[in-house]
Amino acid sequence: MTATTQGPPDTGTRLQRLSLNTATTKYWTLQQAIDGALRAGIPALGVWRDRVAEVGTERAAQLIRDAGLRVSSLCRGGFLTAVDPAEQRKALADNRAAIIEAATLGTDSLIMVVGGLPGGDRDIAGARRLVADRIADLVPFAVEHGVRLVLEPLHPMYCADRAVLSTLGQALDLAAPHPAESVGVVVDTFHVWWDPALDEQIDRAGRENRLAAYQVCDWNLPIAADALLSRGMMGDGHIDFDTIGGWVRDAGYTGDIEVEIFNADIWAADGDEVLATMARRFVDLVLPAAEQSIHQDAG
Amino acid sequence: MTATTQGPPDTGTRLQRLSLNTATTKYWTLQQAIDGALRAGIPALGVWRDRVAEVGTERAAQLIRDAGLRVSSLCRGGFLTAVDPAEQRKALADNRAAIIEAATLGTDSLIMVVGGLPGGDRDIAGARRLVADRIADLVPFAVEHGVRLVLEPLHPMYCADRAVLSTLGQALDLAAPHPAESVGVVVDTFHVWWDPALDEQIDRAGRENRLAAYQVCDWNLPIAADALLSRGMMGDGHIDFDTIGGWVRDAGYTGDIEVEIFNADIWAADGDEVLATMARRFVDLVLPAAEQSIHQDAG
Repeated sequence: MTATTQGPPDTGTRLQRLSLNTATTKYWTLQQAIDGALRAGIPALGVWRDRVAEVGTERAAQLIRDAGLRVSSLCRGGFLTAVDPAEQRKALADNRAAIIEAATLGTDSLIMVVGGLPGGDRDIAGARRLVADRIADLVPFAVEHGVRLVLEPLHPMYCADRAVLSTLGQALDLAAPHPAESVGVVVDTFHVWWDPALDEQIDRAGRENRLAAYQVCDWNLPIAADALLSRGMMGDGHIDFDTIGGWVRDAGYTGDIEVEIFNADIWAADGDEVLATMARRFVDLVLPAAEQSIHQDAG
Repeated sequence: MTATTQGPPDTGTRLQRLSLNTATTKYWTLQQAIDGALRAGIPALGVWRDRVAEVGTERAAQLIRDAGLRVSSLCRGGFLTAVDPAEQRKALADNRAAIIEAATLGTDSLIMVVGGLPGGDRDIAGARRLVADRIADLVPFAVEHGVRLVLEPLHPMYCADRAVLSTLGQALDLAAPHPAESVGVVVDTFHVWWDPALDEQIDRAGRENRLAAYQVCDWNLPIAADALLSRGMMGDGHIDFDTIGGWVRDAGYTGDIEVEIFNADIWAADGDEVLATMARRFVDLVLPAAEQSIHQDAG
Protein backbone atom coordinates (compact mmCIF):
# COMPACT_ATOMS: atom_id res chain seq x y z
CA MET A 1 0.00 0.00 0.00
CA THR A 2 1.27 3.41 -0.97
CA ALA A 3 0.91 6.37 1.32
CA THR A 4 -1.19 9.17 -0.15
CA THR A 5 -2.33 12.48 1.24
CA GLN A 6 -5.62 10.76 1.99
CA GLY A 7 -4.20 7.58 3.46
CA PRO A 8 -1.92 6.87 6.40
CA PRO A 9 1.41 8.64 5.86
CA ASP A 10 3.57 5.55 6.41
CA THR A 11 2.18 2.12 6.98
CA GLY A 12 5.53 0.42 7.18
CA THR A 13 6.29 0.96 10.82
CA ARG A 14 4.33 3.92 12.12
CA LEU A 15 1.09 2.04 12.67
CA GLN A 16 2.67 -0.92 14.38
CA ARG A 17 1.06 -0.09 17.74
CA LEU A 18 -2.32 0.98 16.37
CA SER A 19 -5.31 -1.24 17.02
CA LEU A 20 -8.78 -0.82 15.55
CA ASN A 21 -11.45 -1.39 18.16
CA THR A 22 -14.43 -2.88 16.34
CA ALA A 23 -16.77 -0.42 18.05
CA THR A 24 -15.24 2.30 15.84
CA THR A 25 -16.62 0.59 12.75
CA LYS A 26 -19.82 -0.57 14.36
CA TYR A 27 -21.57 -1.68 11.18
CA TRP A 28 -18.69 -3.79 9.90
CA THR A 29 -18.77 -7.54 10.44
CA LEU A 30 -15.67 -9.14 11.92
CA GLN A 31 -14.53 -10.13 8.44
CA GLN A 32 -15.04 -6.58 7.17
CA ALA A 33 -13.08 -5.21 10.12
CA ILE A 34 -10.25 -7.65 9.42
CA ASP A 35 -10.20 -6.72 5.73
CA GLY A 36 -10.42 -3.00 6.53
CA ALA A 37 -7.56 -3.20 9.01
CA LEU A 38 -5.43 -5.04 6.44
CA ARG A 39 -6.18 -2.43 3.76
CA ALA A 40 -5.26 0.38 6.17
CA GLY A 41 -2.09 -1.30 7.42
CA ILE A 42 -3.42 -1.63 10.96
CA PRO A 43 -1.93 -4.71 12.62
CA ALA A 44 -4.31 -5.28 15.56
CA LEU A 45 -7.97 -5.43 16.52
CA GLY A 46 -9.75 -4.74 19.78
CA VAL A 47 -12.72 -7.04 19.43
CA TRP A 48 -16.20 -6.68 20.87
CA ARG A 49 -18.03 -9.84 21.79
CA ASP A 50 -20.88 -9.22 19.35
CA ARG A 51 -18.37 -9.50 16.48
CA VAL A 52 -17.08 -12.75 17.95
CA ALA A 53 -20.56 -14.18 18.48
CA GLU A 54 -21.39 -13.54 14.86
CA VAL A 55 -19.06 -16.31 13.63
CA GLY A 56 -18.28 -18.22 16.82
CA THR A 57 -15.18 -17.90 18.95
CA GLU A 58 -13.01 -20.57 17.29
CA ARG A 59 -13.80 -19.29 13.81
CA ALA A 60 -13.21 -15.68 14.88
CA ALA A 61 -9.83 -16.61 16.31
CA GLN A 62 -8.91 -18.40 13.11
CA LEU A 63 -10.00 -15.56 10.83
CA ILE A 64 -7.95 -13.03 12.80
CA ARG A 65 -4.95 -15.35 13.04
CA ASP A 66 -5.06 -16.21 9.34
CA ALA A 67 -5.07 -12.50 8.53
CA GLY A 68 -1.91 -12.05 10.58
CA LEU A 69 -3.57 -9.61 12.98
CA ARG A 70 -3.17 -9.41 16.75
CA VAL A 71 -6.06 -9.14 19.19
CA SER A 72 -5.25 -6.31 21.58
CA SER A 73 -8.26 -6.89 23.85
CA LEU A 74 -11.70 -8.41 24.13
CA CYS A 75 -14.48 -5.95 25.00
CA ARG A 76 -16.04 -6.58 27.35
CA GLY A 77 -16.80 -8.37 30.60
CA GLY A 78 -18.27 -6.81 33.68
CA PHE A 79 -21.75 -5.66 34.77
CA LEU A 80 -21.16 -7.10 38.19
CA THR A 81 -23.44 -5.01 40.41
CA ALA A 82 -26.46 -7.32 40.61
CA VAL A 83 -27.83 -7.73 44.14
CA ASP A 84 -29.94 -10.81 43.47
CA PRO A 85 -27.92 -14.05 43.86
CA ALA A 86 -29.37 -15.61 40.72
CA GLU A 87 -28.43 -12.49 38.74
CA GLN A 88 -24.97 -12.58 40.27
CA ARG A 89 -24.51 -16.19 39.15
CA LYS A 90 -25.67 -15.26 35.66
CA ALA A 91 -23.18 -12.39 35.52
CA LEU A 92 -20.35 -14.61 36.69
CA ALA A 93 -21.22 -17.25 34.10
CA ASP A 94 -21.21 -14.63 31.37
CA ASN A 95 -17.85 -13.30 32.52
CA ARG A 96 -16.36 -16.80 32.62
CA ALA A 97 -17.54 -17.26 29.03
CA ALA A 98 -15.84 -13.96 28.13
CA ILE A 99 -12.61 -15.13 29.78
CA ILE A 100 -12.65 -18.29 27.66
CA GLU A 101 -13.35 -16.21 24.55
CA ALA A 102 -10.39 -13.95 25.29
CA ALA A 103 -8.09 -16.92 25.79
CA THR A 104 -9.33 -18.51 22.57
CA LEU A 105 -8.79 -15.28 20.66
CA GLY A 106 -5.23 -15.11 21.93
CA THR A 107 -5.52 -11.95 24.00
CA ASP A 108 -4.76 -11.75 27.69
CA SER A 109 -6.83 -8.57 28.15
CA LEU A 110 -10.52 -8.73 28.99
CA ILE A 111 -11.80 -5.16 29.38
CA MET A 112 -14.22 -4.89 32.31
CA VAL A 113 -17.04 -2.33 32.48
CA VAL A 114 -18.15 -3.00 36.02
CA GLY A 115 -21.81 -1.91 35.87
CA GLY A 116 -23.85 0.93 37.33
CA LEU A 117 -26.19 1.18 40.27
CA PRO A 118 -28.49 -1.85 40.50
CA GLY A 119 -31.99 -0.93 39.25
CA GLY A 120 -33.67 1.58 41.53
CA ASP A 121 -30.83 1.43 44.05
CA ARG A 122 -28.92 4.48 45.30
CA ASP A 123 -26.31 2.68 47.41
CA ILE A 124 -23.18 3.49 45.45
CA ALA A 125 -20.82 2.28 48.17
CA GLY A 126 -22.73 -1.01 48.25
CA ALA A 127 -22.52 -1.33 44.46
CA ARG A 128 -18.77 -0.78 44.65
CA ARG A 129 -18.48 -3.53 47.25
CA LEU A 130 -20.44 -5.86 44.98
CA VAL A 131 -17.96 -5.21 42.18
CA ALA A 132 -15.02 -5.97 44.48
CA ASP A 133 -16.66 -9.24 45.54
CA ARG A 134 -17.41 -10.37 42.00
CA ILE A 135 -13.88 -9.50 40.80
CA ALA A 136 -12.56 -11.70 43.62
CA ASP A 137 -14.91 -14.47 42.44
CA LEU A 138 -13.56 -14.23 38.88
CA VAL A 139 -9.82 -13.91 39.47
CA PRO A 140 -9.01 -17.63 39.94
CA PHE A 141 -10.84 -18.55 36.73
CA ALA A 142 -9.11 -15.75 34.83
CA VAL A 143 -5.69 -16.83 36.10
CA GLU A 144 -6.42 -20.40 35.13
CA HIS A 145 -7.06 -19.27 31.55
CA GLY A 146 -4.16 -16.85 31.34
CA VAL A 147 -6.48 -13.84 31.02
CA ARG A 148 -6.21 -10.58 32.89
CA LEU A 149 -9.27 -8.69 34.07
CA VAL A 150 -8.66 -5.14 32.88
CA LEU A 151 -10.71 -2.71 34.95
CA GLU A 152 -11.99 0.30 33.03
CA PRO A 153 -12.83 3.45 34.95
CA LEU A 154 -15.65 5.12 33.04
CA HIS A 155 -16.38 8.83 32.94
CA PRO A 156 -18.44 9.86 36.00
CA MET A 157 -21.31 10.75 33.66
CA TYR A 158 -21.88 6.98 33.36
CA CYS A 159 -21.67 6.27 37.08
CA ALA A 160 -25.40 5.60 37.57
CA ASP A 161 -25.98 3.37 34.56
CA ARG A 162 -22.71 1.88 33.29
CA ALA A 163 -19.87 1.84 35.82
CA VAL A 164 -19.61 2.80 39.47
CA LEU A 165 -15.87 2.70 38.79
CA SER A 166 -15.09 6.33 37.97
CA THR A 167 -11.37 7.05 38.41
CA LEU A 168 -8.08 5.36 37.69
CA GLY A 169 -7.12 5.60 41.35
CA GLN A 170 -10.31 3.80 42.32
CA ALA A 171 -9.56 1.10 39.71
CA LEU A 172 -6.09 0.59 41.15
CA ASP A 173 -7.54 0.34 44.66
CA LEU A 174 -10.00 -2.26 43.39
CA ALA A 175 -7.20 -4.19 41.70
CA ALA A 176 -4.85 -4.02 44.70
CA PRO A 177 -5.93 -7.20 46.52
CA HIS A 178 -5.11 -9.29 43.46
CA PRO A 179 -1.85 -10.20 41.72
CA ALA A 180 -0.85 -7.64 39.07
CA GLU A 181 -0.87 -10.29 36.35
CA SER A 182 -4.52 -11.15 37.11
CA VAL A 183 -6.08 -7.69 37.40
CA GLY A 184 -4.96 -4.65 35.43
CA VAL A 185 -6.39 -1.28 34.45
CA VAL A 186 -7.00 0.52 31.16
CA VAL A 187 -6.49 4.21 30.50
CA ASP A 188 -9.18 5.39 28.09
CA THR A 189 -8.58 9.06 27.39
CA PHE A 190 -12.27 9.88 27.01
CA HIS A 191 -13.08 8.62 30.46
CA VAL A 192 -10.17 10.00 32.48
CA TRP A 193 -8.78 13.09 30.73
CA TRP A 194 -10.40 15.49 33.24
CA ASP A 195 -8.97 13.78 36.35
CA PRO A 196 -6.69 16.11 38.32
CA ALA A 197 -4.94 13.02 39.73
CA LEU A 198 -4.42 11.40 36.32
CA ASP A 199 -0.65 11.86 36.08
CA GLU A 200 0.04 10.39 39.50
CA GLN A 201 -2.40 7.51 39.00
CA ILE A 202 -0.95 6.58 35.59
CA ASP A 203 2.48 6.64 37.20
CA ARG A 204 1.11 4.46 40.01
CA ALA A 205 -0.41 2.05 37.48
CA GLY A 206 3.03 1.66 35.94
CA ARG A 207 4.77 1.15 39.28
CA GLU A 208 2.19 -1.43 40.27
CA ASN A 209 2.53 -3.23 36.90
CA ARG A 210 -1.16 -2.87 36.17
CA LEU A 211 -1.21 -0.63 33.09
CA ALA A 212 -2.70 -3.21 30.73
CA ALA A 213 -4.22 -1.17 27.91
CA TYR A 214 -4.36 2.32 26.43
CA GLN A 215 -7.42 3.41 24.46
CA VAL A 216 -7.74 6.75 22.72
CA CYS A 217 -10.53 8.91 21.43
CA ASP A 218 -11.47 12.52 21.97
CA TRP A 219 -13.93 14.41 24.20
CA ASN A 220 -16.26 16.25 21.84
CA LEU A 221 -18.79 18.91 22.73
CA PRO A 222 -21.68 19.18 22.84
CA ILE A 223 -22.31 15.90 24.60
CA ALA A 224 -24.32 13.73 22.18
CA ALA A 225 -28.06 13.27 22.72
CA ASP A 226 -27.19 9.64 23.43
CA ALA A 227 -24.39 10.29 25.90
CA LEU A 228 -22.72 6.99 25.04
CA LEU A 229 -22.02 8.31 21.55
CA SER A 230 -20.07 11.42 22.58
CA ARG A 231 -16.67 9.99 21.76
CA GLY A 232 -14.80 11.75 18.98
CA MET A 233 -11.94 11.20 16.57
CA MET A 234 -8.62 12.29 18.05
CA GLY A 235 -8.08 15.96 17.28
CA ASP A 236 -11.77 16.83 17.03
CA GLY A 237 -12.19 17.58 20.74
CA HIS A 238 -10.48 18.82 23.87
CA ILE A 239 -8.02 16.09 24.90
CA ASP A 240 -4.27 16.64 25.00
CA PHE A 241 -3.00 13.27 23.72
CA ASP A 242 0.61 14.31 23.86
CA THR A 243 0.50 14.95 27.59
CA ILE A 244 -1.53 11.88 28.54
CA GLY A 245 0.41 9.72 26.07
CA GLY A 246 3.63 10.96 27.66
CA TRP A 247 2.42 9.86 31.08
CA VAL A 248 1.46 6.45 29.68
CA ARG A 249 4.86 6.15 28.00
CA ASP A 250 6.70 7.19 31.17
CA ALA A 251 4.72 4.58 33.09
CA GLY A 252 6.37 1.99 30.84
CA TYR A 253 3.46 1.08 28.60
CA THR A 254 4.67 -0.23 25.24
CA GLY A 255 1.59 -2.18 24.10
CA ASP A 256 -1.09 -1.63 21.51
CA ILE A 257 -3.02 1.62 21.41
CA GLU A 258 -6.67 1.05 20.59
CA VAL A 259 -8.92 3.57 18.96
CA GLU A 260 -12.46 3.04 20.23
CA ILE A 261 -15.00 5.60 19.06
CA PHE A 262 -18.73 5.47 19.65
CA ASN A 263 -20.04 8.19 17.39
CA ALA A 264 -23.07 8.14 15.10
CA ASP A 265 -21.40 10.36 12.48
CA ILE A 266 -18.31 8.17 12.35
CA TRP A 267 -20.45 5.04 12.16
CA ALA A 268 -22.34 6.54 9.22
CA ALA A 269 -19.14 7.39 7.33
CA ASP A 270 -17.28 5.12 4.92
CA GLY A 271 -15.23 2.64 6.96
CA ASP A 272 -12.07 2.92 4.88
CA GLU A 273 -12.16 6.70 5.18
CA VAL A 274 -12.62 6.42 8.94
CA LEU A 275 -9.59 4.14 9.17
CA ALA A 276 -7.50 6.45 6.99
CA THR A 277 -8.39 9.44 9.19
CA MET A 278 -7.77 7.37 12.29
CA ALA A 279 -4.32 6.33 11.05
CA ARG A 280 -3.37 9.93 10.20
CA ARG A 281 -4.57 11.29 13.52
CA PHE A 282 -2.80 8.45 15.32
CA VAL A 283 0.48 9.33 13.62
CA ASP A 284 0.04 13.07 14.14
CA LEU A 285 -1.39 13.19 17.67
CA VAL A 286 -0.84 9.91 19.49
CA LEU A 287 2.36 8.44 18.12
CA PRO A 288 4.76 11.33 18.93
CA ALA A 289 4.56 10.66 22.66
CA ALA A 290 5.01 6.94 22.04
CA GLU A 291 7.92 7.45 19.63
CA GLN A 292 9.84 9.42 22.22
CA SER A 293 9.94 6.26 24.29
CA ILE A 294 11.66 4.46 21.44
CA HIS A 295 14.27 7.20 21.30
CA GLN A 296 14.61 7.14 25.07
CA ASP A 297 14.98 3.36 25.06
CA ALA A 298 17.68 3.67 22.41
CA GLY A 299 19.46 6.50 24.18
CA MET B 1 -50.17 29.28 56.05
CA THR B 2 -51.79 25.91 56.58
CA ALA B 3 -50.07 22.71 55.58
CA THR B 4 -52.06 20.61 53.08
CA THR B 5 -51.36 17.34 51.37
CA GLN B 6 -50.23 19.36 48.37
CA GLY B 7 -48.14 21.86 50.29
CA PRO B 8 -45.14 21.54 52.54
CA PRO B 9 -46.00 19.25 55.47
CA ASP B 10 -44.92 21.72 58.15
CA THR B 11 -43.73 25.19 57.42
CA GLY B 12 -43.23 26.16 61.01
CA THR B 13 -39.74 24.87 61.55
CA ARG B 14 -39.00 22.11 59.08
CA LEU B 15 -38.08 24.43 56.23
CA GLN B 16 -35.90 26.71 58.29
CA ARG B 17 -32.72 25.60 56.47
CA LEU B 18 -34.23 25.42 52.98
CA SER B 19 -33.17 27.99 50.41
CA LEU B 20 -34.66 28.48 46.96
CA ASN B 21 -31.96 29.05 44.38
CA THR B 22 -33.46 31.36 41.77
CA ALA B 23 -32.20 29.09 38.97
CA THR B 24 -34.88 26.58 40.04
CA THR B 25 -37.61 29.04 39.07
CA LYS B 26 -35.78 30.44 36.09
CA TYR B 27 -38.68 32.39 34.63
CA TRP B 28 -39.59 34.15 37.87
CA THR B 29 -38.39 37.68 38.45
CA LEU B 30 -36.68 38.41 41.75
CA GLN B 31 -39.95 39.78 43.13
CA GLN B 32 -41.81 36.66 42.02
CA ALA B 33 -39.17 34.46 43.64
CA ILE B 34 -39.47 36.44 46.87
CA ASP B 35 -43.26 36.18 46.85
CA GLY B 36 -43.13 32.49 45.95
CA ALA B 37 -40.69 31.73 48.75
CA LEU B 38 -42.91 33.58 51.21
CA ARG B 39 -46.00 31.66 50.08
CA ALA B 40 -44.14 28.36 50.43
CA GLY B 41 -42.64 29.18 53.82
CA ILE B 42 -39.10 29.10 52.49
CA PRO B 43 -36.92 31.52 54.47
CA ALA B 44 -33.91 32.00 52.17
CA LEU B 45 -32.89 32.61 48.57
CA GLY B 46 -29.79 31.68 46.61
CA VAL B 47 -29.70 34.51 44.11
CA TRP B 48 -28.32 34.52 40.59
CA ARG B 49 -26.83 37.75 39.33
CA ASP B 50 -29.32 38.10 36.48
CA ARG B 51 -32.11 38.43 39.06
CA VAL B 52 -30.11 41.08 40.88
CA ALA B 53 -29.30 42.99 37.70
CA GLU B 54 -32.97 43.15 36.87
CA VAL B 55 -33.70 45.63 39.67
CA GLY B 56 -30.22 46.78 40.69
CA THR B 57 -28.22 45.53 43.65
CA GLU B 58 -29.39 48.01 46.30
CA ARG B 59 -33.03 47.55 45.39
CA ALA B 60 -32.63 43.75 45.28
CA ALA B 61 -31.09 43.79 48.74
CA GLN B 62 -33.93 45.93 50.05
CA LEU B 63 -36.66 43.79 48.49
CA ILE B 64 -35.21 40.63 50.03
CA ARG B 65 -34.57 42.29 53.40
CA ASP B 66 -38.06 43.80 53.51
CA ALA B 67 -39.51 40.35 52.86
CA GLY B 68 -37.62 38.99 55.83
CA LEU B 69 -35.68 36.49 53.72
CA ARG B 70 -32.00 35.55 54.00
CA VAL B 71 -29.62 35.38 51.04
CA SER B 72 -27.78 32.07 51.28
CA SER B 73 -25.42 32.78 48.37
CA LEU B 74 -24.84 34.81 45.25
CA CYS B 75 -24.40 32.77 42.06
CA ARG B 76 -21.96 33.27 40.58
CA GLY B 77 -18.44 34.55 40.05
CA GLY B 78 -15.67 32.75 38.25
CA PHE B 79 -14.77 32.07 34.61
CA LEU B 80 -11.16 32.74 35.39
CA THR B 81 -9.32 30.75 32.71
CA ALA B 82 -8.68 33.48 30.15
CA VAL B 83 -5.12 33.50 28.80
CA ASP B 84 -5.20 36.98 27.30
CA PRO B 85 -4.27 39.66 29.86
CA ALA B 86 -7.08 42.00 28.77
CA GLU B 87 -9.59 39.17 29.17
CA GLN B 88 -8.10 38.36 32.55
CA ARG B 89 -8.57 41.96 33.69
CA LYS B 90 -12.13 41.90 32.46
CA ALA B 91 -12.82 38.69 34.40
CA LEU B 92 -11.29 40.15 37.55
CA ALA B 93 -13.36 43.31 37.24
CA ASP B 94 -16.52 41.26 36.83
CA ASN B 95 -15.65 39.16 39.86
CA ARG B 96 -14.95 42.26 41.95
CA ALA B 97 -18.38 43.55 40.96
CA ALA B 98 -19.86 40.22 42.07
CA ILE B 99 -18.07 40.48 45.42
CA ILE B 100 -19.60 43.91 45.98
CA GLU B 101 -23.02 42.59 45.01
CA ALA B 102 -22.70 39.72 47.49
CA ALA B 103 -21.72 42.09 50.28
CA THR B 104 -24.59 44.43 49.42
CA LEU B 105 -27.07 41.55 49.43
CA GLY B 106 -25.86 40.51 52.86
CA THR B 107 -24.40 37.14 51.97
CA ASP B 108 -20.81 36.16 52.60
CA SER B 109 -20.89 33.38 49.97
CA LEU B 110 -20.02 34.05 46.35
CA ILE B 111 -20.25 30.76 44.44
CA MET B 112 -17.41 30.42 41.93
CA VAL B 113 -17.66 28.41 38.70
CA VAL B 114 -14.06 28.63 37.64
CA GLY B 115 -14.35 28.26 33.86
CA GLY B 116 -13.40 25.63 31.31
CA LEU B 117 -10.53 25.29 28.88
CA PRO B 118 -9.74 28.58 27.16
CA GLY B 119 -11.10 28.54 23.59
CA GLY B 120 -9.30 26.00 21.44
CA ASP B 121 -6.81 25.19 24.20
CA ARG B 122 -6.16 21.68 25.50
CA ASP B 123 -3.78 22.57 28.34
CA ILE B 124 -5.88 21.57 31.32
CA ALA B 125 -3.01 21.83 33.80
CA GLY B 126 -2.32 25.35 32.51
CA ALA B 127 -5.99 26.29 32.86
CA ARG B 128 -5.95 25.06 36.44
CA ARG B 129 -2.91 27.19 37.18
CA LEU B 130 -4.69 30.23 35.70
CA VAL B 131 -7.59 29.64 38.09
CA ALA B 132 -5.22 29.44 41.06
CA ASP B 133 -3.58 32.70 40.01
CA ARG B 134 -6.87 34.55 39.56
CA ILE B 135 -8.22 33.30 42.91
CA ALA B 136 -5.08 34.68 44.52
CA ASP B 137 -5.72 37.99 42.74
CA LEU B 138 -9.26 38.15 44.11
CA VAL B 139 -8.78 37.06 47.72
CA PRO B 140 -7.66 40.44 49.17
CA PHE B 141 -10.63 42.23 47.60
CA ALA B 142 -13.02 39.55 48.86
CA VAL B 143 -11.61 39.76 52.38
CA GLU B 144 -11.90 43.53 52.32
CA HIS B 145 -15.64 43.17 51.58
CA GLY B 146 -16.30 40.33 53.99
CA VAL B 147 -17.13 37.92 51.20
CA ARG B 148 -15.88 34.38 50.85
CA LEU B 149 -15.03 32.88 47.46
CA VAL B 150 -16.84 29.56 47.46
CA LEU B 151 -15.22 27.21 44.95
CA GLU B 152 -17.62 24.87 43.19
CA PRO B 153 -16.29 21.63 41.76
CA LEU B 154 -18.46 20.85 38.73
CA HIS B 155 -19.21 17.41 37.36
CA PRO B 156 -16.37 16.25 35.08
CA MET B 157 -18.79 16.31 32.14
CA TYR B 158 -18.41 20.12 32.26
CA CYS B 159 -14.61 20.12 32.50
CA ALA B 160 -13.98 21.33 28.95
CA ASP B 161 -16.53 24.13 28.83
CA ARG B 162 -17.55 25.22 32.36
CA ALA B 163 -15.09 24.30 35.09
CA VAL B 164 -11.68 22.67 35.11
CA LEU B 165 -12.36 22.23 38.83
CA SER B 166 -13.81 18.72 38.96
CA THR B 167 -13.56 17.26 42.47
CA LEU B 168 -13.99 18.44 46.03
CA GLY B 169 -10.44 17.37 46.84
CA GLN B 170 -9.14 19.53 44.00
CA ALA B 171 -11.23 22.46 45.29
CA LEU B 172 -9.74 22.07 48.75
CA ASP B 173 -6.24 21.95 47.29
CA LEU B 174 -7.01 25.13 45.37
CA ALA B 175 -8.33 26.81 48.50
CA ALA B 176 -5.45 25.67 50.72
CA PRO B 177 -3.07 28.63 50.16
CA HIS B 178 -5.72 31.06 51.43
CA PRO B 179 -7.30 31.65 54.86
CA ALA B 180 -10.36 29.46 55.43
CA GLU B 181 -12.57 32.51 55.95
CA SER B 182 -11.64 33.86 52.51
CA VAL B 183 -11.95 30.75 50.32
CA GLY B 184 -14.44 27.95 50.93
CA VAL B 185 -16.01 25.14 48.94
CA VAL B 186 -19.56 24.09 48.10
CA VAL B 187 -20.86 20.55 47.97
CA ASP B 188 -23.43 20.32 45.17
CA THR B 189 -24.78 16.77 45.13
CA PHE B 190 -25.27 16.72 41.35
CA HIS B 191 -21.64 17.48 40.69
CA VAL B 192 -19.93 15.25 43.26
CA TRP B 193 -22.20 12.32 44.12
CA TRP B 194 -20.17 9.86 42.04
CA ASP B 195 -16.80 10.69 43.66
CA PRO B 196 -15.31 7.67 45.46
CA ALA B 197 -13.38 10.10 47.69
CA LEU B 198 -16.44 12.19 48.58
CA ASP B 199 -16.79 11.10 52.21
CA GLU B 200 -13.18 11.78 53.06
CA GLN B 201 -13.14 15.09 51.20
CA ILE B 202 -16.34 16.34 52.87
CA ASP B 203 -14.78 15.38 56.19
CA ARG B 204 -11.62 17.23 55.16
CA ALA B 205 -13.67 20.30 54.16
CA GLY B 206 -15.13 20.32 57.66
CA ARG B 207 -11.78 19.89 59.37
CA GLU B 208 -10.32 22.70 57.27
CA ASN B 209 -13.32 24.97 58.01
CA ARG B 210 -14.08 25.43 54.33
CA LEU B 211 -17.50 23.83 53.96
CA ALA B 212 -19.36 26.99 53.03
CA ALA B 213 -22.48 25.79 51.23
CA TYR B 214 -24.55 22.72 50.50
CA GLN B 215 -26.66 22.56 47.34
CA VAL B 216 -28.97 19.71 46.47
CA CYS B 217 -30.61 18.35 43.36
CA ASP B 218 -30.70 14.91 41.78
CA TRP B 219 -28.83 13.14 38.97
CA ASN B 220 -31.46 12.20 36.40
CA LEU B 221 -31.04 9.93 33.42
CA PRO B 222 -30.95 10.14 30.54
CA ILE B 223 -28.63 13.14 30.46
CA ALA B 224 -30.60 16.01 28.92
CA ALA B 225 -29.97 17.04 25.32
CA ASP B 226 -28.60 20.28 26.80
CA ALA B 227 -26.31 18.67 29.38
CA LEU B 228 -26.59 21.74 31.63
CA LEU B 229 -30.27 20.95 32.17
CA SER B 230 -29.82 17.42 33.50
CA ARG B 231 -30.41 18.35 37.12
CA GLY B 232 -33.47 16.79 38.70
CA MET B 233 -35.77 17.22 41.69
CA MET B 234 -34.54 15.33 44.72
CA GLY B 235 -35.95 11.81 44.60
CA ASP B 236 -36.32 11.69 40.82
CA GLY B 237 -32.81 10.38 40.19
CA HIS B 238 -29.97 8.31 41.57
CA ILE B 239 -28.50 10.32 44.45
CA ASP B 240 -28.52 9.09 48.04
CA PHE B 241 -29.19 12.35 49.91
CA ASP B 242 -29.28 10.67 53.29
CA THR B 243 -25.71 9.41 52.98
CA ILE B 244 -24.22 12.58 51.51
CA GLY B 245 -26.27 14.75 53.87
CA GLY B 246 -24.96 12.70 56.77
CA TRP B 247 -21.38 13.37 55.70
CA VAL B 248 -22.15 17.08 55.38
CA ARG B 249 -23.77 17.08 58.83
CA ASP B 250 -20.86 15.17 60.38
CA ALA B 251 -18.48 17.70 58.86
CA GLY B 252 -20.25 20.31 61.00
CA TYR B 253 -22.26 22.12 58.35
CA THR B 254 -25.34 23.77 59.86
CA GLY B 255 -26.10 26.40 57.22
CA ASP B 256 -28.72 26.82 54.54
CA ILE B 257 -29.38 24.04 52.06
CA GLU B 258 -30.06 25.40 48.59
CA VAL B 259 -32.09 23.65 45.97
CA GLU B 260 -30.72 24.57 42.55
CA ILE B 261 -32.29 22.76 39.61
CA PHE B 262 -31.66 23.45 35.95
CA ASN B 263 -34.35 21.46 34.22
CA ALA B 264 -36.57 22.47 31.33
CA ASP B 265 -39.57 20.49 32.62
CA ILE B 266 -39.34 22.07 36.06
CA TRP B 267 -38.93 25.50 34.52
CA ALA B 268 -42.08 24.92 32.46
CA ALA B 269 -44.12 23.86 35.50
CA ASP B 270 -46.11 26.16 37.79
CA GLY B 271 -43.68 27.82 40.20
CA ASP B 272 -45.80 27.36 43.31
CA GLU B 273 -46.18 23.66 42.54
CA VAL B 274 -42.43 23.35 42.04
CA LEU B 275 -41.83 24.95 45.44
CA ALA B 276 -44.40 22.73 47.13
CA THR B 277 -42.76 19.61 45.66
CA MET B 278 -39.35 20.96 46.56
CA ALA B 279 -40.40 21.54 50.17
CA ARG B 280 -41.91 18.06 50.50
CA ARG B 281 -38.86 16.38 48.98
CA PHE B 282 -36.61 18.47 51.19
CA VAL B 283 -38.46 17.34 54.29
CA ASP B 284 -38.59 13.71 53.18
CA LEU B 285 -35.15 13.22 51.68
CA VAL B 286 -32.77 15.98 52.75
CA LEU B 287 -33.89 17.05 56.20
CA PRO B 288 -33.63 13.69 58.02
CA ALA B 289 -29.83 13.69 57.85
CA ALA B 290 -29.79 17.33 58.99
CA GLU B 291 -32.25 16.70 61.80
CA GLN B 292 -30.09 14.00 63.26
CA SER B 293 -27.50 16.65 63.88
CA ILE B 294 -29.98 18.57 65.98
CA HIS B 295 -30.61 15.45 68.03
CA GLN B 296 -26.91 14.80 68.26
CA ASP B 297 -26.26 18.37 69.34
CA ALA B 298 -28.94 17.95 72.02
CA GLY B 299 -27.60 14.59 73.19
